[in-house]
Amino acid sequence: MDERLEKQLAFSLEIDKEKNIFRQTHLSGHGRRENDAEHAWHMAIMAYLLREYANERVDILRVMLMCLIHDIVEIDAGDTYAYDAEGLKTQKEREDKAKERLFSLLPDDQRAELTALFDEFEAYETPEARYAHALDNLQPLILNNSNDGGDWREHGVTAATVYGRQRKTRLGSERLFEVTDRILQSNIKKGNLPET
Amino acid sequence: MDERLEKQLAFSLEIDKEKNIFRQTHLSGHGRRENDAEHAWHMAIMAYLLREYANERVDILRVMLMCLIHDIVEIDAGDTYAYDAEGLKTQKEREDKAKERLFSLLPDDQRAELTALFDEFEAYETPEARYAHALDNLQPLILNNSNDGGDWREHGVTAATVYGRQRKTRLGSERLFEVTDRILQSNIKKGNLPET
Repeated sequence: MDERLEKQLAFSLEIDKEKNIFRQTHLSGHGRRENDAEHAWHMAIMAYLLREYANERVDILRVMLMCLIHDIVEIDAGDTYAYDAEGLKTQKEREDKAKERLFSLLPDDQRAELTALFDEFEAYETPEARYAHALDNLQPLILNNSNDGGDWREHGVTAATVYGRQRKTRLGSERLFEVTDRILQSNIKKGNLPET
Repeated sequence: MDERLEKQLAFSLEIDKEKNIFRQTHLSGHGRRENDAEHAWHMAIMAYLLREYANERVDILRVMLMCLIHDIVEIDAGDTYAYDAEGLKTQKEREDKAKERLFSLLPDDQRAELTALFDEFEAYETPEARYAHALDNLQPLILNNSNDGGDWREHGVTAATVYGRQRKTRLGSERLFEVTDRILQSNIKKGNLPET
C-alpha cells in the first residue's frame, strides 16, 4: 500500500480517540455526558439544516468540515469547559501541540488543509467560521435547555458568563442569536440560570 | 418564533437520541461499543479524506450528508447487525416507519430532501451512495482490525459472510476494496476470522 493511503488510514484510526473525550454537556433526557465526536456530528447536521439563517452566504461544505474537525485536538489537549477560567489560560498552547502531532499523521497537503480549516475556525474571522461557532454554541444550548439547565447549575455559572460566550453567536447568525436569547431568558425566569 | 425554525429545532433535538443507539463495533483500544452518531461522524470525515479513491467523481457534500444521516432511522428502528439474518428480514419495514416519523418533524422541503438522501443511500445506485457505503463498511473494519477482529469472534461470523458484505465496497471504490481485502486476508491468516 502506498505511503499516502497508509497515512490517511493511520489518521482515520487515530481520530477514533475523539469518542473518548467527554464534554460538560449532558445528552437530552438527563443522559450521560456527551463526547466530542457526538457533538461534532450533531453540529454538522444542524449547520446544514439551519444554513439559511447564517448572516452571510457560506460555503456549507467548509462549515461542516470545521464542525467535524474542530475538536480533534482535544484527543491530546482534553476538553476545556467554556467557563473554566484556569483551563482557558493554557488551552491554546495545549491545542497547538496537539494540532501539530495529529494533523502530521496525514499526507502534507491534507495536513495543511485541515490545519488551515482548524485555524480558520479558531480565528473567528470568516463567515464560515462565525457561523460554525454559532452552532458550537447552539448545539449544547438546546441539550442543556432540554435538561432544565442542569449543566449550568452543576458549574454554578451565571447568566452574565453564559451571555459572554453566547453573544458571539450573533456574529454568525442574528436569527440563531434570537433563539439563544429566548432560551436564556426563559431559563433565567425558571431559576435555572441565576442572573448574578 | 416561526413554525419553520421551530420544526428545525425540534428535529435537531430529536436526533440527539442517535447517540444512544449502540452498534456491534467496539472502539479502538478494546473500548466500549460505538454508537451511531460516532460512527456517522467518523464516516463523514473519512469520506472527505479518502474521496480521491472513489471510483467515480462524487459530490462530496452529498456523500457526507448521507454519511451523517443514514442511521437516524435507528432512533426508532434500532441497530440491525450486518450479519443478523433474522433482524435483516424486518429491517426495511422498521426503518420505513422510523423515516416517516423522524423526517416529518422537519419543514416539508427539508423532510423531502433528507428522505431522498436516505433513500438514495439505501438504493446503492448513484456514485455518491456507492462511495458512502464503502465508508459504511470500511470505518467499522479499521476499528475491528485494530482490535484483532474481536467483533467477528464475538458473533462467530466467517470470512465468507464478511466478504459477502465487504465485497460491495468495490462498487464505490476499487482502491478501498484492495485495503479491505488486505485487512481481511491478514485477519484470516492470524486466525481472527475463520474461513468457514
